[in-house]
Amino acid sequence: MIIPKEPKLTKEQFEEVVSIVEEYNCRIQPIEGHHRTIYAVLGEERETIMVNRILGLDYIDRFDAVDSPFKLMDIHSELAHHKIKIGDHIVGESPFIIAGHCTIDPKNPNLFIESAHAVKEAGAKAIRGGVWKPRTMPYSFQGDDSSMKILIEAKEQTGLPVDTEVMDDHQLQIAVEAGVDILQIGARNALNYSLLKQVGQATADKRIAVLLKRSIGMGPINEFIAASEYIAAGGNADVMLCPRGTSPTMDGYRNYPDESITPLLKDKTWAPVIVDPSHSVGRAKFVPSAAMAAMAYGADGVIIETHCDPKRGIGDDPKQSITPDVLRKLIQDIDQIWEIRKHYKKELPVTA
Amino acid sequence: MIIPKEPKLTKEQFEEVVSIVEEYNCRIQPIEGHHRTIYAVLGEERETIMVNRILGLDYIDRFDAVDSPFKLMDIHSELAHHKIKIGDHIVGESPFIIAGHCTIDPKNPNLFIESAHAVKEAGAKAIRGGVWKPRTMPYSFQGDDSSMKILIEAKEQTGLPVDTEVMDDHQLQIAVEAGVDILQIGARNALNYSLLKQVGQATADKRIAVLLKRSIGMGPINEFIAASEYIAAGGNADVMLCPRGTSPTMDGYRNYPDESITPLLKDKTWAPVIVDPSHSVGRAKFVPSAAMAAMAYGADGVIIETHCDPKRGIGDDPKQSITPDVLRKLIQDIDQIWEIRKHYKKELPVTA
Amino acid sequence: MIIPKEPKLTKEQFEEVVSIVEEYNCRIQPIEGHHRTIYAVLGEERETIMVNRILGLDYIDRFDAVDSPFKLMDIHSELAHHKIKIGDHIVGESPFIIAGHCTIDPKNPNLFIESAHAVKEAGAKAIRGGVWKPRTMPYSFQGDDSSMKILIEAKEQTGLPVDTEVMDDHQLQIAVEAGVDILQIGARNALNYSLLKQVGQATADKRIAVLLKRSIGMGPINEFIAASEYIAAGGNADVMLCPRGTSPTMDGYRNYPDESITPLLKDKTWAPVIVDPSHSVGRAKFVPSAAMAAMAYGADGVIIETHCDPKRGIGDDPKQSITPDVLRKLIQDIDQIWEIRKHYKKELPVTA
Amino acid sequence: MIIPKEPKLTKEQFEEVVSIVEEYNCRIQPIEGHHRTIYAVLGEERETIMVNRILGLDYIDRFDAVDSPFKLMDIHSELAHHKIKIGDHIVGESPFIIAGHCTIDPKNPNLFIESAHAVKEAGAKAIRGGVWKPRTMPYSFQGDDSSMKILIEAKEQTGLPVDTEVMDDHQLQIAVEAGVDILQIGARNALNYSLLKQVGQATADKRIAVLLKRSIGMGPINEFIAASEYIAAGGNADVMLCPRGTSPTMDGYRNYPDESITPLLKDKTWAPVIVDPSHSVGRAKFVPSAAMAAMAYGADGVIIETHCDPKRGIGDDPKQSITPDVLRKLIQDIDQIWEIRKHYKKELPVTA
Repeated sequence: MIIPKEPKLTKEQFEEVVSIVEEYNCRIQPIEGHHRTIYAVLGEERETIMVNRILGLDYIDRFDAVDSPFKLMDIHSELAHHKIKIGDHIVGESPFIIAGHCTIDPKNPNLFIESAHAVKEAGAKAIRGGVWKPRTMPYSFQGDDSSMKILIEAKEQTGLPVDTEVMDDHQLQIAVEAGVDILQIGARNALNYSLLKQVGQATADKRIAVLLKRSIGMGPINEFIAASEYIAAGGNADVMLCPRGTSPTMDGYRNYPDESITPLLKDKTWAPVIVDPSHSVGRAKFVPSAAMAAMAYGADGVIIETHCDPKRGIGDDPKQSITPDVLRKLIQDIDQIWEIRKHYKKELPVTA
Repeated sequence: MIIPKEPKLTKEQFEEVVSIVEEYNCRIQPIEGHHRTIYAVLGEERETIMVNRILGLDYIDRFDAVDSPFKLMDIHSELAHHKIKIGDHIVGESPFIIAGHCTIDPKNPNLFIESAHAVKEAGAKAIRGGVWKPRTMPYSFQGDDSSMKILIEAKEQTGLPVDTEVMDDHQLQIAVEAGVDILQIGARNALNYSLLKQVGQATADKRIAVLLKRSIGMGPINEFIAASEYIAAGGNADVMLCPRGTSPTMDGYRNYPDESITPLLKDKTWAPVIVDPSHSVGRAKFVPSAAMAAMAYGADGVIIETHCDPKRGIGDDPKQSITPDVLRKLIQDIDQIWEIRKHYKKELPVTA
Repeated sequence: MIIPKEPKLTKEQFEEVVSIVEEYNCRIQPIEGHHRTIYAVLGEERETIMVNRILGLDYIDRFDAVDSPFKLMDIHSELAHHKIKIGDHIVGESPFIIAGHCTIDPKNPNLFIESAHAVKEAGAKAIRGGVWKPRTMPYSFQGDDSSMKILIEAKEQTGLPVDTEVMDDHQLQIAVEAGVDILQIGARNALNYSLLKQVGQATADKRIAVLLKRSIGMGPINEFIAASEYIAAGGNADVMLCPRGTSPTMDGYRNYPDESITPLLKDKTWAPVIVDPSHSVGRAKFVPSAAMAAMAYGADGVIIETHCDPKRGIGDDPKQSITPDVLRKLIQDIDQIWEIRKHYKKELPVTA
Repeated sequence: MIIPKEPKLTKEQFEEVVSIVEEYNCRIQPIEGHHRTIYAVLGEERETIMVNRILGLDYIDRFDAVDSPFKLMDIHSELAHHKIKIGDHIVGESPFIIAGHCTIDPKNPNLFIESAHAVKEAGAKAIRGGVWKPRTMPYSFQGDDSSMKILIEAKEQTGLPVDTEVMDDHQLQIAVEAGVDILQIGARNALNYSLLKQVGQATADKRIAVLLKRSIGMGPINEFIAASEYIAAGGNADVMLCPRGTSPTMDGYRNYPDESITPLLKDKTWAPVIVDPSHSVGRAKFVPSAAMAAMAYGADGVIIETHCDPKRGIGDDPKQSITPDVLRKLIQDIDQIWEIRKHYKKELPVTA
């Protein structure tokens, strides 16, 4: 939809617009209102270069695209009924809870193994463990390849799938070869399209899921889904979306919680939504409230930093990890909220 | 705490700072770190003019106050155990649900009376009905004094307390005289200190509660609580805080939902928190999710636009009102979430 | 423009939409694209109740209005060539600089009088002096009616027009009677529609200008212009718009500077834009940069806190006031930037 | 600085805090105020794990670090007087203007060569040309290795240094080998620490400058400078910072302009600031205003999309490129603003 600055295009302007869109096999249909006329573009209206050429005309005010831009991740795409299976769990059938350390301490492997067993007993369906970590300062501990062995040891001992963040091709190759089940793309790399393509290609046909965090900053929802489209277009449609708080900070939390985006995502994409309350709020005592709110909003699960002894953690753990005891109770509460939410899928005019 | 721009104040600078704070009966205590020295202000460190004079010095980088600025609304104030009673309901003892029309249609009084009975049957504890409404454009319907009779008629027929928004002294006087039980201060007037003072004074010793919405814009939490302090300082401490979404808009919602602010408020003030999901999300189908999330975050209640026939509503009703049937079901769910939340008040290291 | 959730409305849905818009004397024109059909509303498409009823339909995704909603303040309205004259100055013909104290200290009237003379000599065209001030805490100094005499004394001694902020009807009446030339509406009251109406009515046909600050929070531009429409509709079209920084805060400044909104305002309204850099950045040393940036963006002027002895100021003055000496130099620089900007009005395809 | 939740730590709490900080060779100094006691941490107070452990204690409210975290990029570091030389230009001595295409069209190499000559004649000091481009959708044109030859051809013909964006190691190696003079890191990769490290290492001792854009989202200023520290720590301190607009969008612009961050950056780091107005505002007609505002804020230069025939551009060019004629005039105006700004470096109490 083309909206001119003046109430109506002149004849010359109209002809210039028509000549541009015809190069892209589109047509123009004017819509004459009381006060002004606007111009619909019929055809592939989102063609980037065409849109930019139109926006480049002095007399055009704005262009509003109407169609969805997603081929694979759109809620009406052919993948609309695609189910993601991770370990024994089919995401969407019951709450998918991922729990474990922010960062694995390579000097204390037993701590992580102990936490892994504890979160399994508490009811988690997968284990998170950061092998490598993005840090604001270059001089902070950045993780260590050697922690991968510890993560895989936890997988073997518990039988649960494991999750870790990868930030570049080197880490991606190690994680895929080692047998990681869920690859996380962190918020700082959420729009690193080179990495998204590499991840899609490296995990194609390998039954490895990808947990794509939302980028820092309140980018539009379409940008978030479009990033997941990169992974799917690369060959792997097992993508889950992860709101994790945005900037600017809400004073008192680490970030501005954004679990409320969940129903908006579910209106546009079939992708499961797994919320990260730990990074949203950034303090252990606030995590259970935020996790329950995420489930109330219809999330398919949550990823929660949990540590058998938070004070001994490295990375964000001492500050934002809950204990396995709190996790156990929280999972029971999440299960109850899951039952409550079920009504909203069928009986009531409410998005699911 | 005074942080200088250079690693340390010079002798002359130090003496200038000391001479300023001594005018306000404060003292300076230097704290010498490895790389720099900072300077604590002992005494009434929040004295505005003193702080501004210090910040006016070229060599000062910033000033961080540490004490809470609230006398009455602070969680540690003498009012910490104050309970607000509205009708038969003690806020905080069970979910406080306010429901009804955004705007009363003065031409169709029966519609509002019908909705009032319906929300009572659905389980609401108070009835909202907009007599006057702030509208973005001056040419939109702004409400009508005559609707006050309809609101009071609903109160008499149902026996429930009633809630309406007031925007100026004229409306305030009418509402107080008519017997309104809850006065709402809307988001656009949330920092209208003249009105806040008038409301505090006009309702002092009258057992009228005030529901103060959060201002549009992501203002700091202290600014929100400070606005409630105006009402309490005016003479009425029966103030409830109401997050209702902030700008900038989350694309797809009317506002950016901010029920997640609830635990942060509860850390600083004893005031009950009643969330408004209707204005946060702005579309009926998203309201129940947002209402449940608010309760999961520990809210004391919600205020929900409910209409017996939303299509016939005026104001925001056709767009964002749910029906009494949806409300009934939602209140049952809210009651369940209330029970779930109880654990977090005692057993777990989680804020309540 | 109505955008349905599914690619096309069903026959029943289409008929329901048609029946609603016909009640408001509008028509529907479908626009059939490749992938979906959207529906233009011909007629008074912004009729609020109609729009809300359409948005209340389950199968409608969104509604995009196209026409401008402004009758008086629109850039194409009959007032498009209206000029505002204040004292001897016609706003828009050369930089309009307002300068003076944030707050008049009623105990030190001479300070203000001294600053008034000094800013006049420095080149200011009007004098600001806060008689009353909104303060975050109820216990801070709120201004004093007695300062009005001091403000008017400054007007008489210098011959320059004077500016002060009013927050309620009481203050408005005092200011109008005393002979204030420019009434400021502060950011906290920028959407206080009751006050805006009172101001429009009280100043109609009195040659008093209104300086309307932008509300705190990054509200949409149309909301800002619509607030000015309230004043114009009340009877006074001498309204100037004043960006003054928004929340959330940019770390290091008091607010997030928003002088960059100027060209966007100038695209939609004929109203002059006077930027307030003092409140945007909140520290004296950053004010000149921000003032020059505002002029580079095409502002018609700036309002700058200036104090002959900032350390002795009350309110925000010690922190953010510049001195008359800095102001004099700044005004010279602003004059140069004004000359530079002139090219952009005629020769280049750039908004003015 | 440790701020407890209660007015004072208990004896047990105090001892626990002391025992933690002593593990990291720090000491605690209590500061007793009227209403509460806070606790200074003397020593390396920013040690991440120590801070997180303290924040993990239930009775701690917050922790405020005071020292700057930057070793190389800090305004007081040993590099404080480091000058970056690019081609014949010493950044900071006169306006550094980079201009050219958003995206090089590999099918029309002559267009880019023509623009390169034109921007040189207009007064630009370096030529930008996008060989590869991040695109929201995977199906959009992503750039092409073959365009590198065209970029280098422009360098050879004009004798000006050239600038291009790199998004991964593959592109980085090609660009370094080909002789690119300025490597851009785009907003989406601004916190891609793996890439930042690679860039720092690959350009060490090669006289290649890096132009680091600010990440999307209003992240804190320290996060931006810390990202540049990654590159410097990798071996190359020739880093320039580039504000380019943040989310959320200001309605009417592509992003929310953030040139106003310039004085805040200059308070903390010696790094030059080169602003990108083209991506901030996103429409050609708004670019000159934003460029001049950036210079008014004290930027060392701007990077501007310029195209000899914008309508024939690909990427963002048709929408946001100005023409060489507009650029020539703009550079003259920028030179004048540069002269105006000079006063503020010496005579006035204003940051430079």
